[in-house]
Amino acid sequence: MEGKIFFRCLFFTAAAALLISFTIFSFPGPSSYPLPCGPNSAWCGSKNRILRRPSAATLRNDHAADVPRHPLDPLTVREIGKVHEVIKSFFSKSAYTVHSLVLEEPDKEAVVGWEKGKPLPSPRTASVIARAAGKNHILTVDVESGEVVEHDASHISGFPLVTLEDMQSVITAPLASALFNRTILERGLDPSVVTCLPFSPGWFGKAEDGRRLVKLECFLVEGTANFYMRPIEGIIIITDLDTHEVVELIDTGKHIPIPKAAGTDYRLSAMNGPVVKLPNPVSMEQPNGPNFVIEDDHLVKWANWEFHLKPDPRAGVVISQAKMRDPETGVLRSVMYQGFASELFVPYMDPEEAWYFKTYMDAGEYGFGLQALALDPLNDCPRNAKYMDAVFAAADGTPYVRENMVCIFERYAGDTAWRHTESPVTGEMIREARPKITLVARMVASLANYDYVVDWEFHADGLIHVKVALTGIVIVKGTSYVNMNQVKENEDLYGTLLSDNIIGVVHDHYINFYLDMDIDGQDNSFVNVHLKREYTNGASPRKSYMKVNKQVAKTEKEAQIKLSLYDPSEFHVVNPNKKTKVGNPVGYKIVPAGTAASLLDPEDTPQKRSAFTNNQIWATRYNKSEQWSGGLFAYQSHGDDTLQVWSDRDRPIENKDIVLWYTLGFHHVPCQEDFPIMPTLSSGFDLKPVNFFERNPVLRVAPYVENELPVCKAAATA
Amino acid sequence: MEGKIFFRCLFFTAAAALLISFTIFSFPGPSSYPLPCGPNSAWCGSKNRILRRPSAATLRNDHAADVPRHPLDPLTVREIGKVHEVIKSFFSKSAYTVHSLVLEEPDKEAVVGWEKGKPLPSPRTASVIARAAGKNHILTVDVESGEVVEHDASHISGFPLVTLEDMQSVITAPLASALFNRTILERGLDPSVVTCLPFSPGWFGKAEDGRRLVKLECFLVEGTANFYMRPIEGIIIITDLDTHEVVELIDTGKHIPIPKAAGTDYRLSAMNGPVVKLPNPVSMEQPNGPNFVIEDDHLVKWANWEFHLKPDPRAGVVISQAKMRDPETGVLRSVMYQGFASELFVPYMDPEEAWYFKTYMDAGEYGFGLQALALDPLNDCPRNAKYMDAVFAAADGTPYVRENMVCIFERYAGDTAWRHTESPVTGEMIREARPKITLVARMVASLANYDYVVDWEFHADGLIHVKVALTGIVIVKGTSYVNMNQVKENEDLYGTLLSDNIIGVVHDHYINFYLDMDIDGQDNSFVNVHLKREYTNGASPRKSYMKVNKQVAKTEKEAQIKLSLYDPSEFHVVNPNKKTKVGNPVGYKIVPAGTAASLLDPEDTPQKRSAFTNNQIWATRYNKSEQWSGGLFAYQSHGDDTLQVWSDRDRPIENKDIVLWYTLGFHHVPCQEDFPIMPTLSSGFDLKPVNFFERNPVLRVAPYVENELPVCKAAATA
Repeated sequence: MEGKIFFRCLFFTAAAALLISFTIFSFPGPSSYPLPCGPNSAWCGSKNRILRRPSAATLRNDHAADVPRHPLDPLTVREIGKVHEVIKSFFSKSAYTVHSLVLEEPDKEAVVGWEKGKPLPSPRTASVIARAAGKNHILTVDVESGEVVEHDASHISGFPLVTLEDMQSVITAPLASALFNRTILERGLDPSVVTCLPFSPGWFGKAEDGRRLVKLECFLVEGTANFYMRPIEGIIIITDLDTHEVVELIDTGKHIPIPKAAGTDYRLSAMNGPVVKLPNPVSMEQPNGPNFVIEDDHLVKWANWEFHLKPDPRAGVVISQAKMRDPETGVLRSVMYQGFASELFVPYMDPEEAWYFKTYMDAGEYGFGLQALALDPLNDCPRNAKYMDAVFAAADGTPYVRENMVCIFERYAGDTAWRHTESPVTGEMIREARPKITLVARMVASLANYDYVVDWEFHADGLIHVKVALTGIVIVKGTSYVNMNQVKENEDLYGTLLSDNIIGVVHDHYINFYLDMDIDGQDNSFVNVHLKREYTNGASPRKSYMKVNKQVAKTEKEAQIKLSLYDPSEFHVVNPNKKTKVGNPVGYKIVPAGTAASLLDPEDTPQKRSAFTNNQIWATRYNKSEQWSGGLFAYQSHGDDTLQVWSDRDRPIENKDIVLWYTLGFHHVPCQEDFPIMPTLSSGFDLKPVNFFERNPVLRVAPYVENELPVCKAAATA
Repeated sequence: MEGKIFFRCLFFTAAAALLISFTIFSFPGPSSYPLPCGPNSAWCGSKNRILRRPSAATLRNDHAADVPRHPLDPLTVREIGKVHEVIKSFFSKSAYTVHSLVLEEPDKEAVVGWEKGKPLPSPRTASVIARAAGKNHILTVDVESGEVVEHDASHISGFPLVTLEDMQSVITAPLASALFNRTILERGLDPSVVTCLPFSPGWFGKAEDGRRLVKLECFLVEGTANFYMRPIEGIIIITDLDTHEVVELIDTGKHIPIPKAAGTDYRLSAMNGPVVKLPNPVSMEQPNGPNFVIEDDHLVKWANWEFHLKPDPRAGVVISQAKMRDPETGVLRSVMYQGFASELFVPYMDPEEAWYFKTYMDAGEYGFGLQALALDPLNDCPRNAKYMDAVFAAADGTPYVRENMVCIFERYAGDTAWRHTESPVTGEMIREARPKITLVARMVASLANYDYVVDWEFHADGLIHVKVALTGIVIVKGTSYVNMNQVKENEDLYGTLLSDNIIGVVHDHYINFYLDMDIDGQDNSFVNVHLKREYTNGASPRKSYMKVNKQVAKTEKEAQIKLSLYDPSEFHVVNPNKKTKVGNPVGYKIVPAGTAASLLDPEDTPQKRSAFTNNQIWATRYNKSEQWSGGLFAYQSHGDDTLQVWSDRDRPIENKDIVLWYTLGFHHVPCQEDFPIMPTLSSGFDLKPVNFFERNPVLRVAPYVENELPVCKAAATA
């Protein structure tokens, strides 16, 4: 343990604080209640006391007594505790780590057939992914009987996601390396203000197989909480995640200075000088509370919508059984069986040694839900929001509570659901407008530097808008340059000079969504509603027009879609077995908005591993095991278990149970405005009813009238 | 005047009501105040009494004494009155109609050089477009001296926009046609419940030249206010707009029934049965009033933004001199000299006789601003909005007031301006989030059936979001079909069967925006920041990455941009003469979102006339006369005065005063949900700072805290 003396201050303080916290979360028995961070817990010092929740807005404050009430309800504290006991005894002969411990959902038929009041499909089962004796294990555990009903330890490429405990335990690994200590000292840096963070290494060939690797990068934590802006450039410590052995230390950045701390901190408490505040706040107010209810902790009912919402450690938020009550018939109609963020891909566009491997798959490598932390009640979500906690399993299999992970609120943003003013020329004096009110379910995943805000927004007219907003901190590269006039004519910085000695490296973000549409039942078809120039050949004074041709995709390959502005289509999922009164098949369409496509070579390993970015839209045959578009074991995966592989099987999809996939993309060429923290940037897509209803389903919505709106006073005068 | 007996009821009532209204607006002398619709005016019956404004929210209720205070302020009531006198005497020998009477803006240099407190650039001049003796006249009138300083009556293809008075006077033209009366009677229809509306005829060859034509279509107004759903299909009455002579009557729809009235009315007052109301309204509340001020009626100041806003009869809303105060230096910096909707193009995709000509250019043919009617104070805009009136000129040249045409409000939609939570792994306990508050300026143009909501949204971080939302009523085609099973295998309906006997015809919407960016001054460059796959050729374990190549457009043709997902670029307007501290040129980029491209043949006359849809992005040399991308005289234009024509001159644009243009598009394949009124559908684009600021300009924004937010009670309990 050479060099230990240098790492006292930050590493040990942080490690100690976190070990205490994990101890608190990890060691209670199955029947005891794992405490969240509360005012009396040792972990919760003055620094994070702000993380307390507003208790009135939280659905439940106590999870010890949670009981599942719906077939899709996540495992409860008690259930995880029971499974933990099973795992302990199953792996009694070797150490183990739990990488995933979630409900093994019942088959779709059982869920669809279940009704409130009936017993839940039996038995409740858990799906466990664990590592033990150097192997990946997939276990299915009967929660009631405690029986391990399935066990698979057959070799599969890749590893399960890294746990918070993996990360926590590996960040001190450089401590043990004399080489690392020497390297830091040679740069004239004080190791007591150096912190290292673990980054997934991607996969670049079989030489990397056989061990779980991580690449650590280090930062100076002096003078700013925004240490990301102070990279010790060029040092990469390749470390074994299981043994914590430093496999290799790469140093290509000896002469690159550490960027300065000044101007990088973004915390309110760190602002020197005045803060900016508009004197009269604008607030979304709903004094009598919301119009939605959440039955049995997870079933959200609002306007004509009803859906099941649950936190998930990998996907973040899972929306299930989204149904809409037809305003004309009163019948609750199925729209989507399940929807969630399946995988992410964030490739950085710098081929140099310390950067080429940065090709993150954040859901499969880190857990999009595991990284979704407590929301700020007044700023992440509006005042009228309600909050939902998550119950997850720690690496030892014990349950813990992630507070306020999801917020749910009704939104009025000042827009109209529909409107019309009749021209005075017609003699009709008409002005009719209706406010657009929507319901938003939100979570924010903070994947180290970056923050992803994911919204599922339900509109009363049947539309579902999915939005992803990017904010947080752009990961940067150290450079010796302080001005662009120092850069040679044809030199490629692989990014933008953002500040002295800081380059914001060009990168992409892709978020792939799993959308199991079940339009009025499971058997659906994917229809390419193609728009094409048609010539009239003299039959009209018009030379040309745009003609609609509908093509039903027979097999999966016909539903591999690359969008093109000049070769456009609409993409419908229809139920060919159910028609409207005038004979149109009922359906929904997916409506892309701004997006980006991956420009990497299809044979480049990062692209093969995240091959879900090869197309923007896909439709595949429903298969319960095909949920994670980058593969179940995404960490160091080879790309042999991806959406591309499944789709290339080319299964029939006409009038079958099909899953729609959408890949939302962003190219990000950073600019100085992204420094030191990035203004929110967003895009999304819509799922929009198309001949699903007989007519406009919000025709009967009433307008706002003055005397029904809240009566408000400014805070100062109240 | 055969057949007069049959047109009594509706036509005459409507015509009488409207003539009274136009009389009120049109006949006061220059010094009298043209009354808006008030509780005591004859026009304002019980049907439209709801159109009253909430006086507290309106900037000014009295316009008689308006005085211009900024070089770009629109002509006042008094000024229009003066110009009216000049026109009357100028055209003393012949009848005339005024088609446009607006401020002739001073040269850019004079406007930019002006400061508050100085006298306005002199003289104030008016630009008048009039028709007299069968000719188009363009006059420039010195408002103070009353001198006509320029007069151009040289032949130009096309005509000025139709006035409301044109439309009003021509709708009764079919009355005079025996053939029309016979046609209606032959169908077994009661002419007293038939109304006809004028539609611009497009242009399809020189045979149509020499006279101002309009194509009237007729509807049954029985049983519903939504007569658009009851077309008398196939009848087109081609009429001369000047003489009101019926030139030709086409009838291709003899056997097509009139669709039923039931279920088509959308008015609250017409709802049989219950309306839908969420019991607890969500409201945007700001009890102490807004944080913006509007100085001198038109200069909006909010957060770091300052801009001049004025209604315009053709463009709708014009934003001028948008500037942002740099939060670091306090300097007010120029972003955009002027921005507005320049032209629209709405081609319908049906080549048949009664439909092929529907290729509307709504700004140049009808006036996007002329058709922007009073907003509904609680439903078109939120409760905290303020309203601005317009002062326009009637066809005789007299001024009138269009009340509440624009609303301005601050929006908080529950989103974040930026946020970050630090991973617990790093040992930093950080959760910082800031609410996103924006300022919206909105107008809604109702072009007969369709409603276009146009928002200019200013973000505190320097971003300008322009949004166009489509709602209102889809224009439909009558058909004998009531079910899709009656349609032959390969028969093309050119649309979707929406209801019994109703087809929603496929069409596109394009809105072209003029964006005169002046980034820190007038001399700017357009930069194509191209993203392209680059191979590493073995120099990295990565095979490929995405590389940025910046190309400055030397001439206009290099800035004719078709967007491509797989050949992407960012598009920057930079000031090459001004750099940030680290040496990046200051700039803004235009960020498209969802859009559509025209698929018409480039040589089809509608496409040539609206050739601004040939590309999504253009940059041209600034030229004061090049404002209307479909041509100054768009009505029956030939396409010889369009953005394409100007851009093809290929003038140098590097480091010059340049104008950016963006064409936003929508393909619209109607669906049953669009019947009988269409749920709002929107898209837009962003103008986003890119190295314009040294760093994130909203870093210092404070979060919301509970005790500063309003204190609200529900209406019932207040």
